Amino acid sequence: MGNQIAVDATIMDNVVLGDNVTIGKGALIYPNVVIGDNVFIGAYCIIGEPTMGYYKNTSNHIFAMTKVGKNSIIRANTTIYENVIIGESFQTGHHVTIRENTKIGKNCSVGTLSDLQGDIEIGDFVRLHSNVHIGQLTKIDDYVWIYPYVVTTNDPYPPMGNLVGSHICQFAQIATGATILPGKTIGENALVGAGSLVTKDVPPEIVVVGVPAKERGSVKDIKDDAGNNVYPWKDYLKQNRGYPWQTADMFDEGKV
Amino acid sequence: MGNQIAVDATIMDNVVLGDNVTIGKGALIYPNVVIGDNVFIGAYCIIGEPTMGYYKNTSNHIFAMTKVGKNSIIRANTTIYENVIIGESFQTGHHVTIRENTKIGKNCSVGTLSDLQGDIEIGDFVRLHSNVHIGQLTKIDDYVWIYPYVVTTNDPYPPMGNLVGSHICQFAQIATGATILPGKTIGENALVGAGSLVTKDVPPEIVVVGVPAKERGSVKDIKDDAGNNVYPWKDYLKQNRGYPWQTADMFDEGKV
Amino acid sequence: MGNQIAVDATIMDNVVLGDNVTIGKGALIYPNVVIGDNVFIGAYCIIGEPTMGYYKNTSNHIFAMTKVGKNSIIRANTTIYENVIIGESFQTGHHVTIRENTKIGKNCSVGTLSDLQGDIEIGDFVRLHSNVHIGQLTKIDDYVWIYPYVVTTNDPYPPMGNLVGSHICQFAQIATGATILPGKTIGENALVGAGSLVTKDVPPEIVVVGVPAKERGSVKDIKDDAGNNVYPWKDYLKQNRGYPWQTADMFDEGKV
Repeated sequence: MGNQIAVDATIMDNVVLGDNVTIGKGALIYPNVVIGDNVFIGAYCIIGEPTMGYYKNTSNHIFAMTKVGKNSIIRANTTIYENVIIGESFQTGHHVTIRENTKIGKNCSVGTLSDLQGDIEIGDFVRLHSNVHIGQLTKIDDYVWIYPYVVTTNDPYPPMGNLVGSHICQFAQIATGATILPGKTIGENALVGAGSLVTKDVPPEIVVVGVPAKERGSVKDIKDDAGNNVYPWKDYLKQNRGYPWQTADMFDEGKV
Repeated sequence: MGNQIAVDATIMDNVVLGDNVTIGKGALIYPNVVIGDNVFIGAYCIIGEPTMGYYKNTSNHIFAMTKVGKNSIIRANTTIYENVIIGESFQTGHHVTIRENTKIGKNCSVGTLSDLQGDIEIGDFVRLHSNVHIGQLTKIDDYVWIYPYVVTTNDPYPPMGNLVGSHICQFAQIATGATILPGKTIGENALVGAGSLVTKDVPPEIVVVGVPAKERGSVKDIKDDAGNNVYPWKDYLKQNRGYPWQTADMFDEGKV
Repeated sequence: MGNQIAVDATIMDNVVLGDNVTIGKGALIYPNVVIGDNVFIGAYCIIGEPTMGYYKNTSNHIFAMTKVGKNSIIRANTTIYENVIIGESFQTGHHVTIRENTKIGKNCSVGTLSDLQGDIEIGDFVRLHSNVHIGQLTKIDDYVWIYPYVVTTNDPYPPMGNLVGSHICQFAQIATGATILPGKTIGENALVGAGSLVTKDVPPEIVVVGVPAKERGSVKDIKDDAGNNVYPWKDYLKQNRGYPWQTADMFDEGKV
């Protein structure tokens, strides 16, 4: 199938479009952007937005490559900077900002109003909900979920600017409104409660809650209203959310 | 008076415009949108934004109806999805997102950057300030005010996805930065203090404060700096904010 | 050098452009806007956005002057209202909103998604990071830094609307996620910790932390990991961040 490019979109030099790409109304694609097959770029998205050097020497700025993987949906009003590499089956909400020097794996999503500040590394199957703020130098491993109004910070003595990023390990869950102080590690399968202020590393499979956040035992002790175990969530997730292990499980259970 | 449609706006098929409608620069109106008389749609607004099914079958997607009631002002860069029904005299700020399956009554306002996640029911005269996040399945009754950076959550055991919404009863006030955990009820005339984490239901006319939020007595015991009662606020509001009972009162008091 | 105006930008009557101005794709400049030399206005920015009176009488609305000082960079999707006066070398991120009756000094920056609610006075060299919410009537002195998800509130008894602003004194640092209650003063060189709820005035050079925020001693007692003093930060800042005293110091130290 051919590409559909809105008449008022602007596509600059050296842009590579795959097959079956849609570019929405008024979208602006800067040079050296590579867009995979079946990608949908919504209205007024900006892809390949230039970094600071551009403003100092507009006509000679060399744009670093930005790639959006195949089968991605970039919703209206999302801005993605130059030097961002994103894997396949990516999705954004609206008014998302993804700054330079960011690498995002496959099957990730970033919700409305989320702001990735650049110099960030994100694994596969990571879900950032709406209005998440990921500070520079944050590293997020596979299968992490982060909920609204979570902030990962990076300057221990502001405004000194000696930044240290935090590290969110695989399968961790960081609930709404939690703030992670600079340089902290959230362990694998850990759960950070809503509104918590994380001032220390969180060990794997531990729940922390409060301001400042304190340990409240193992995630394995959490039971839902029916008395069933819930965490580590990989073992208990019933809904089909497209995880690679689910298809197999659901086949086993006869659900597919 | 005739309508004023910007030359670079896009209006798709089966859009119904009332009288005296203004459609701003670059606005994008999808099919099956109904816009009432005297409505102002600001620059780069998107009305009737399609839901997920659209991306799977773009050319055959059937848009559910979206209505914006008469005398509304939708400010620049607001995005409203399909299947949203909004009453008269509605207002938004900028960069607002209102997702599908949402019903909003009359005389409501939603401030800049607020994000309504869909499957939401909102009564009349509700005021959401800037940067409010309303989770799916939230129900908000008449005359509620919610202030910046409040979040209503809905997943008790993330990311299980067994969502339960919260219910904010009429005249309740939820101050800046409060987080409401899934399924909680905030009673009529209750007051949730700034920065609170609401982990239990809040009874009517009760003040709660803190992380986690604890009861601090009746709203009737709160007095302002001059020693006057302030709550329930309906009884004490002196400013004319356009409430239906105010016109009558002000006539009684000779102010109108 | 001449100006570069995108073909699909809209520039209304009585707009004054300096030399070497760039106006990006689809930008919308309302009447009575004055833009200084070397200013870059990004794609889809709106400058001079009208206030409420416009909607009541569109054709006769008199736009108050808005000025953007020379050498400023206004990034894509920023909206600046009428009656905003901004000094030279200003910068914004994306999706910024600056409402009416706001005065901002020189060498300031306002990050992505920040929302200045109007009736605000900001000094020189002030840095607002991403997603900062500055309530009406807030006064911010020179050299203040405010970090993500900070909110300055203004209504002591919501929704009464008897607003009182807060005052942030020079060199103060307000860390991520802090909420400042109405009418509070944050003293010179004070440090408000991440996630704090400020319910009382903070004296100069004092650290406060917690919900509610409590005094934790002098900023002079804070040492970094190497055991060095860090605050007042003006005395210890090693990085060149463009402050007026730095050039002189760096000359003294032979760094320039």
